[in-house]
Amino acid sequence: MTTAPARRELLEGSAAIAEAMIAAGCRFFAGYPMTPFTEVLEEMAARLPDVGGVCMNAESELEAVGMAWGAAATGTRAATGSTGQGLSLMQESLAEISFARVPLVVLNMARAQGDYYQATRGGGHGDYRHLVLAPMDVAEAVELTQLAFHLAWTWRNPVLLFGDYYLAHTTQSVAVEAADFGPPPDIGWALDGTTGGSGTARLVSPLGTTKRRDDVGYDLADHYRACADATAEMLEGVAPMVDADNVSDAEVVVIAFGTPGRYIRAAVRALRDDGVKVGWIRPISLVPFPVAEVAAAAASARAVAVYENNQGQMIDDVRLAVLGQCPVHFIGGLSLDHSGFGIAPDLDVTTLRARIEAVVEQTAGAS
Amino acid sequence: MTTAPARRELLEGSAAIAEAMIAAGCRFFAGYPMTPFTEVLEEMAARLPDVGGVCMNAESELEAVGMAWGAAATGTRAATGSTGQGLSLMQESLAEISFARVPLVVLNMARAQGDYYQATRGGGHGDYRHLVLAPMDVAEAVELTQLAFHLAWTWRNPVLLFGDYYLAHTTQSVAVEAADFGPPPDIGWALDGTTGGSGTARLVSPLGTTKRRDDVGYDLADHYRACADATAEMLEGVAPMVDADNVSDAEVVVIAFGTPGRYIRAAVRALRDDGVKVGWIRPISLVPFPVAEVAAAAASARAVAVYENNQGQMIDDVRLAVLGQCPVHFIGGLSLDHSGFGIAPDLDVTTLRARIEAVVEQTAGAS
Amino acid sequence: MTTAPARRELLEGSAAIAEAMIAAGCRFFAGYPMTPFTEVLEEMAARLPDVGGVCMNAESELEAVGMAWGAAATGTRAATGSTGQGLSLMQESLAEISFARVPLVVLNMARAQGDYYQATRGGGHGDYRHLVLAPMDVAEAVELTQLAFHLAWTWRNPVLLFGDYYLAHTTQSVAVEAADFGPPPDIGWALDGTTGGSGTARLVSPLGTTKRRDDVGYDLADHYRACADATAEMLEGVAPMVDADNVSDAEVVVIAFGTPGRYIRAAVRALRDDGVKVGWIRPISLVPFPVAEVAAAAASARAVAVYENNQGQMIDDVRLAVLGQCPVHFIGGLSLDHSGFGIAPDLDVTTLRARIEAVVEQTAGAS
Amino acid sequence: MTTAPARRELLEGSAAIAEAMIAAGCRFFAGYPMTPFTEVLEEMAARLPDVGGVCMNAESELEAVGMAWGAAATGTRAATGSTGQGLSLMQESLAEISFARVPLVVLNMARAQGDYYQATRGGGHGDYRHLVLAPMDVAEAVELTQLAFHLAWTWRNPVLLFGDYYLAHTTQSVAVEAADFGPPPDIGWALDGTTGGSGTARLVSPLGTTKRRDDVGYDLADHYRACADATAEMLEGVAPMVDADNVSDAEVVVIAFGTPGRYIRAAVRALRDDGVKVGWIRPISLVPFPVAEVAAAAASARAVAVYENNQGQMIDDVRLAVLGQCPVHFIGGLSLDHSGFGIAPDLDVTTLRARIEAVVEQTAGAS
Repeated sequence: MTTAPARRELLEGSAAIAEAMIAAGCRFFAGYPMTPFTEVLEEMAARLPDVGGVCMNAESELEAVGMAWGAAATGTRAATGSTGQGLSLMQESLAEISFARVPLVVLNMARAQGDYYQATRGGGHGDYRHLVLAPMDVAEAVELTQLAFHLAWTWRNPVLLFGDYYLAHTTQSVAVEAADFGPPPDIGWALDGTTGGSGTARLVSPLGTTKRRDDVGYDLADHYRACADATAEMLEGVAPMVDADNVSDAEVVVIAFGTPGRYIRAAVRALRDDGVKVGWIRPISLVPFPVAEVAAAAASARAVAVYENNQGQMIDDVRLAVLGQCPVHFIGGLSLDHSGFGIAPDLDVTTLRARIEAVVEQTAGAS
Repeated sequence: MTTAPARRELLEGSAAIAEAMIAAGCRFFAGYPMTPFTEVLEEMAARLPDVGGVCMNAESELEAVGMAWGAAATGTRAATGSTGQGLSLMQESLAEISFARVPLVVLNMARAQGDYYQATRGGGHGDYRHLVLAPMDVAEAVELTQLAFHLAWTWRNPVLLFGDYYLAHTTQSVAVEAADFGPPPDIGWALDGTTGGSGTARLVSPLGTTKRRDDVGYDLADHYRACADATAEMLEGVAPMVDADNVSDAEVVVIAFGTPGRYIRAAVRALRDDGVKVGWIRPISLVPFPVAEVAAAAASARAVAVYENNQGQMIDDVRLAVLGQCPVHFIGGLSLDHSGFGIAPDLDVTTLRARIEAVVEQTAGAS
Repeated sequence: MTTAPARRELLEGSAAIAEAMIAAGCRFFAGYPMTPFTEVLEEMAARLPDVGGVCMNAESELEAVGMAWGAAATGTRAATGSTGQGLSLMQESLAEISFARVPLVVLNMARAQGDYYQATRGGGHGDYRHLVLAPMDVAEAVELTQLAFHLAWTWRNPVLLFGDYYLAHTTQSVAVEAADFGPPPDIGWALDGTTGGSGTARLVSPLGTTKRRDDVGYDLADHYRACADATAEMLEGVAPMVDADNVSDAEVVVIAFGTPGRYIRAAVRALRDDGVKVGWIRPISLVPFPVAEVAAAAASARAVAVYENNQGQMIDDVRLAVLGQCPVHFIGGLSLDHSGFGIAPDLDVTTLRARIEAVVEQTAGAS
Repeated sequence: MTTAPARRELLEGSAAIAEAMIAAGCRFFAGYPMTPFTEVLEEMAARLPDVGGVCMNAESELEAVGMAWGAAATGTRAATGSTGQGLSLMQESLAEISFARVPLVVLNMARAQGDYYQATRGGGHGDYRHLVLAPMDVAEAVELTQLAFHLAWTWRNPVLLFGDYYLAHTTQSVAVEAADFGPPPDIGWALDGTTGGSGTARLVSPLGTTKRRDDVGYDLADHYRACADATAEMLEGVAPMVDADNVSDAEVVVIAFGTPGRYIRAAVRALRDDGVKVGWIRPISLVPFPVAEVAAAAASARAVAVYENNQGQMIDDVRLAVLGQCPVHFIGGLSLDHSGFGIAPDLDVTTLRARIEAVVEQTAGAS
């Protein structure tokens, strides 16, 4: 495998994610331009040819996900992505890719954070789940991007990387080194590209109710049950990832994911500096969600506060972890700048700090 | 408006839903055949021309939802639908229809119940929600279908009717009478079809980042915030619908929706006849979910048990209502017959009764 | 019907086409932005609300054509469009709309002229044809746009308006007056929008091979034969439109359509001024093609020359008209500027004149 | 490469085409069921796993072509297909695959022959062409299927195999042997599947108007011109294929392609047996069309007659070859059985013979 050499340099998030995909062995990328996903697509278009890979500029997200699916089904490490709207158009395919048990990495370079439900519950049909990783900054994105490929190929299931406009555009000094996850998993069915099939490839997608299905030995009910079992096994086999600080003695624990996690961390640290007993938790994996960590924090806190740049979606997962141990306050809300891509300019650390303080005061009064 | 005359007759669920749509004023229907949705499509194709309506057999679900969207945007009462796979393909459109604030009725004649997340969290992007109604039998489907149109046009938002294979195929004696919801809401923007525009129609979908958007007076952030407000208002303005029995003194309350609700009701009644203190709750509206009713039941019960024909999706909503007041047991699981359409033959009332009894015994031991 | 008042003013082609659509009664427009179609979409978004119409910004061309189809099927005058790539994505729908016998106006604001085959032979399946009109300038676009609606609703068939980047961007002083084509044709099946169906709407799209088709009284073979007959009747019933000059005594007749027709006209006039016996023909309707006019010109000429900004597509139709009466020379070829939208800067009237002269000289030598 | 062993056995056309694809090295196949394409899909689903290949049952033709495109872009020999409707939905992709210069084999198992324009002129945008091969029977299908792969990979361009319902369902004794076309062409850019990129893969699809295009070194106009040149080179480099008999002294030459070619051959032979001077030509490659052969035949005949099971499409290509040397009569027309799949039962050799005789008599009278 041609690996990209490690290089510490100033990279925009989109370029860093592209380098990390290449370091992870990704050799096929397809997408349709849509800000802020476009930036990653452009990087891949510029970089993949250097390493013998192929980048396709599709004419729609439906086309892009189909291409990536086909490429991945031949055994090539492949990825696609879009922003939320484009991922909506891919939902049927993304569900079927899960049922076909084809590994794939999918980027959502989201506008705000309104796609949490889409990412974690999917919009597809049936009992599937995607693993979802949400980096906070460029360096973490480099790590998680590579982990996404490892997890996708280990569990033969799509893995979603949930980024945003800020991640795409922030410049940071990073070294993109190929992570070592040990020997690649034997997925047991891949084609060998130009050399023709030499593996033990199988029909990886069930035919519908056709006369030949019996010949092929397929039973649709069996197939869906096997998929459900594989999903359950995956969700148990992957350890939730979480970042946290000042939780043990916190009266109020604030929870946020992705880029806003940095703002929340800054607001919490400022409050701590002023002696206010607050802490924060940042789920890094949204699926699986760090239930145990949130539950433990809630057990010793007076309240939990949730920040999301949407009308309240992750708060479901927080409540499912807290399960009534303490009140759960929502301190987020849809906050968009004029372009509709990201956080409104009036939402800064000071504002967030004030919202957290309001919860602290309310909680103190209530106890 | 040409209304269908009430007629009590033996109707299959698919025919009854078709009659109810026509009684509710639906004059445009589009779909792509996929069992068990096909049956409704065929009925609409046979019936709509009689009342001056149009039925389109699309070549894909993407095409079908586009047609229904366009028809609804002209002011015609329109509907579409599919089974879960097809709805996956519609997710981008269904989200955008919400953002365009166009009313539409959407049927999911589901295979099993694995599309609960899709129905209640959507697979689209951003902060939208669809109202979701899940009838238990043909008579209720007739009522809820008409209610779906009333709610969709009242709130200018898609409403989803969540049925299944059994609902489509069960024959029941019903009278399809046009329900009277009072004067139709003034949606304020509809076209008048052939007579040209005479209302106050507006651009109901934002242009992207184009030079003309400012001329049009659109601000994308404003638009999404307005949509979020409208969604919040709708979710507060619609009363949850629920069916329940024997809850007040129940030690175990069983929760199920849709067709399986009938099996659970039968199992619970049989247990009551034998003196076992069990009750049941059937959410009729999945969005909004009957949180208060479930919470109240959980307050006085030793445990709640959830049956779904999937790996566990509605159980999230149940836990969010129970919030730790008592244990929540899962007694469901994906159960498919050979075709993959519905419940496996070995899952009958006796089996469900045994599962409920197991929860009762476990709960009694725990207290 | 709310008609736009006539106003002579400086309008860009895109704005003029939008005004003409509104004057023709168009009250529904859907599209996905793609240059140079975007410009028309933006105008419609800005103008339709003023006249009580609806403009939808779709997320793909597939969605756009579905919306327009649905709207048109309710009886609303509707249109959609794109540039060539987007129209490719609509081919299945455009063919089916013909088979459903739904009227619709479709714009191709093309890049160069490589979509001639697509426009005239379609990319859909089966024996359908769209009428195709290709304006040369803004004033003609205003007329043909209105004619397109009249023809579409007269023949219940899509009509394509074939424009380009120059047409969209040229500014010209025009008065957009509603053309009077006499009383609107009785299409006999339209819905009345919000007031419910009162016409004699029929199933306008056949169900596939389903059990109910017999009930509905459909025979697929009958349906396709009826469509073929309707297409044949339409192609005979519509008179070809053509612009021409200096043909009667021309030794070489040059043929070109659309915007390049103006360049050719200028080159031919310059040659005439210098005493060279050349003439030109500009097909205004590409379907039906002005076969008789081209055949008559070829009968008295020594040669015919064809200019198209592509590798040679209309030349098929020219040869089919000339049928060997004289040689047919190709003086076109793909000529793109850097953006890929239009004619390369080195292709001017002087160059075209030189190419025509080369044919004249070659022909003189041959006779 | 694992090649299928030659075996002479009774095979239905669909099975024979599947075997021929496998013999040609095809290891990836994707499709959406639609009669009579479904039959080939089922065969590939049953057979590909045996040779280490992957068969995907897509949820739409758009998805299928995307998958096949992605797989082919990794260097795997891939194919897809459908019937006419499905191919309509693929037009945008099929055009772009040409512009991306990715090889692919595409099957049209057509209903009747109404997709001739679609196959030969494409429905896509711009100046591309697909090579099109139309087998008459199962044995020829085996040969042409393999040739299709050879041509697609030689010219890096999609090749279309145009079959029909009869071809899919006819059973014939054939031996599917891997044809030897010499060493496989060096396409110079393919990936090597799981082993990562080791070739000289390039960006094979242009990004649109993005800031990075200049970095990538792309000029869209250059790209389209290069594609146009490659298409021209291909159309000159591939020799037209044709079958013919009794042409030299024929007064009337009948032209037909595909399955109906057999009926025409039988009718012509019967007439010859009765001393009527008729001959027949069957284009095997529709693109490139056997212009020289048809022109030569027309030069010595009194008339040419064209049979197609459609309203007249190939007749354009015939007229373009004949170029007025003699009259061209149309003796075809849309002929469908009840299902809409194929030739009506009243169209038999006797009927065709009568139609040919009518042309003979008319021609004799005219000379």
